Amino acid sequence: MKKHNFSAGPCILPEEVLKKASDAVINFNNDNLSLIEISHRSQPFVDVIEKARSLALKLLGLENKGYKALFLQGGASMQFLMVAYNLLNKKAAYLNTGTWSDKAIKEAKLFGELVEVASSKDKNFSYIPKAYEIPTDVDYFHCTSNNTIYGTQMKSFPKTSVPMICDMSSDIFSRQLDFSKFDLIYAGAQKNMGPAGTTLVVVKEDILGKVERQIPSMLNYQVIIDKESMFNTPPVFAVYTSMLTLEWLKDLGGIEFIEKVNEKKSALLYSEIDRNPLFKGVAAIEDRSHMNATFTLADKNLQAKFDKMWQEANINGLSGHRSVGGYRASMYNALPLYSVQALVDVMQELERIS
Amino acid sequence: MKKHNFSAGPCILPEEVLKKASDAVINFNNDNLSLIEISHRSQPFVDVIEKARSLALKLLGLENKGYKALFLQGGASMQFLMVAYNLLNKKAAYLNTGTWSDKAIKEAKLFGELVEVASSKDKNFSYIPKAYEIPTDVDYFHCTSNNTIYGTQMKSFPKTSVPMICDMSSDIFSRQLDFSKFDLIYAGAQKNMGPAGTTLVVVKEDILGKVERQIPSMLNYQVIIDKESMFNTPPVFAVYTSMLTLEWLKDLGGIEFIEKVNEKKSALLYSEIDRNPLFKGVAAIEDRSHMNATFTLADKNLQAKFDKMWQEANINGLSGHRSVGGYRASMYNALPLYSVQALVDVMQELERIS
Repeated sequence: MKKHNFSAGPCILPEEVLKKASDAVINFNNDNLSLIEISHRSQPFVDVIEKARSLALKLLGLENKGYKALFLQGGASMQFLMVAYNLLNKKAAYLNTGTWSDKAIKEAKLFGELVEVASSKDKNFSYIPKAYEIPTDVDYFHCTSNNTIYGTQMKSFPKTSVPMICDMSSDIFSRQLDFSKFDLIYAGAQKNMGPAGTTLVVVKEDILGKVERQIPSMLNYQVIIDKESMFNTPPVFAVYTSMLTLEWLKDLGGIEFIEKVNEKKSALLYSEIDRNPLFKGVAAIEDRSHMNATFTLADKNLQAKFDKMWQEANINGLSGHRSVGGYRASMYNALPLYSVQALVDVMQELERIS
Repeated sequence: MKKHNFSAGPCILPEEVLKKASDAVINFNNDNLSLIEISHRSQPFVDVIEKARSLALKLLGLENKGYKALFLQGGASMQFLMVAYNLLNKKAAYLNTGTWSDKAIKEAKLFGELVEVASSKDKNFSYIPKAYEIPTDVDYFHCTSNNTIYGTQMKSFPKTSVPMICDMSSDIFSRQLDFSKFDLIYAGAQKNMGPAGTTLVVVKEDILGKVERQIPSMLNYQVIIDKESMFNTPPVFAVYTSMLTLEWLKDLGGIEFIEKVNEKKSALLYSEIDRNPLFKGVAAIEDRSHMNATFTLADKNLQAKFDKMWQEANINGLSGHRSVGGYRASMYNALPLYSVQALVDVMQELERIS
């Protein structure tokens, strides 16, 4: 029996996507060849990557608005440096909401001066800083929309006159936002979009071409745009499976639909965390992530019992990140409501027998 | 019926590898979860990437010799710049044997002075230059062992006192070489190793740490070594499928065994090209690649007839690269001898009826 998969990422994907991806590894497009043994320049695969790029723009409401969608390699970590390589002339502003922001800051420092506009490090990143100013003389402002490790999520974004760049790796396609407020969005595929191995970059083309340094081809957004994400062989399987996942989301009703499901799931879990005296939420209530709920046991002596119970209930991936401890339930798009219910049932059962 | 797949890359993979990879996308390790929806830090996947790295070193005979095997992203094209970023202080020497060497040269030029020791551009890269000198004051010498587009392959490598770096994307694991003569070998997976989406780098650790520039983490070999190829989420599916392919090769008898098969396949095809008056080989005979045979029709009027015949014989991927024209039969490790026989049969049939 399939497990209730709360993994933080790589994470659960829709059953039908897994089935189609598995089939394509044997026979793609009814062509008696595997997806992974055909030329990436063949029409069937060119159609796949074009569809993936166009679905991404469509789902974000960014068609015909000057944006390009790219499928790259290297994960969000490669974007930490590509963003700076392509866009940082002198100075950039970063909001520090945890490990991933921190890493983005570290890589960007090689390319210019960095202003950390605010940080929630004082409370182990358990909240999102709100009152901060973004200098107007910076090349861009960078933030992380959702912080998997701490279970926090930006509910609103600052107003600024400089280009806004956002690492949306762990909540892209999960909630409605005015995506046109952002000039560059990037996201590793392995949460709401597909398997590890590809990264979506959505970039407003007019912000490019403004730095003086020479940019290596593989790190140059403009080169990748000009080659339609095929400067070299793309990660075929990861792009195909991402396309399937975006198609699944579109057929369900897009972000508008999945946002409601995600709200139901997180409401169910957070209300149990708040109601059940055995549990405590980690993140500041107003900043709680709809994707990753972090919580601890009020009494650590119950840990062994609780761990045994959720494992026996066929639940997977509930351990918290080592820097926070406790538990983390990741509820990405593909996680069904009944999986959250299964977890809530275990929490209530623990309360009953304790 | 499965096609005879002569694709230049992504290319044919062993049937049993495709089957196992397809199964793992549904249920990996009998754990009722897909390979692509579990944590890359979970023990079953850590075991996979460790096995892949150790199999690569074992097959190349480079265990316990100061080398590390890394699985990265970005293809050989990313290595064009990473090699220079990590190793080029002032000056490097490159042998130019075609498009891929050319691109490697272009990217490296951003980081220092380049010496092109020789080039076969004068004859559209249809041969491998032999008499050239490698300066002794360069940081390294770089070459491309096999040139897919032109069908040439280096049969021997120069002696030099400087570190030797080789792009072996299209012939790694296909023939026996003294791999310990190289200080860094890289190869995109999508020929003899697995699907597109990961790149093997085998590097002698003591050549690192000698440049002064600061290297972004994702491009820094030492960082990746220290994190055992898991600085960030690796391309899980591509690494797993590469591990399966390396395991398949080891079980067959390793490079020693497959080299003999590869020699049989290429001998069968080249002897037909040379015997059959309707065909002409493109590459210089002594530099012919065992992986990619390039040839043309002596009489172009036969093209439509020949194309129809091989397509009807269930043959795939035989068209030559646009910069060479004619035909290219790629005979990577997983291509069976009977596929080459099927092609030779068509060539003989064309002769019979013409």
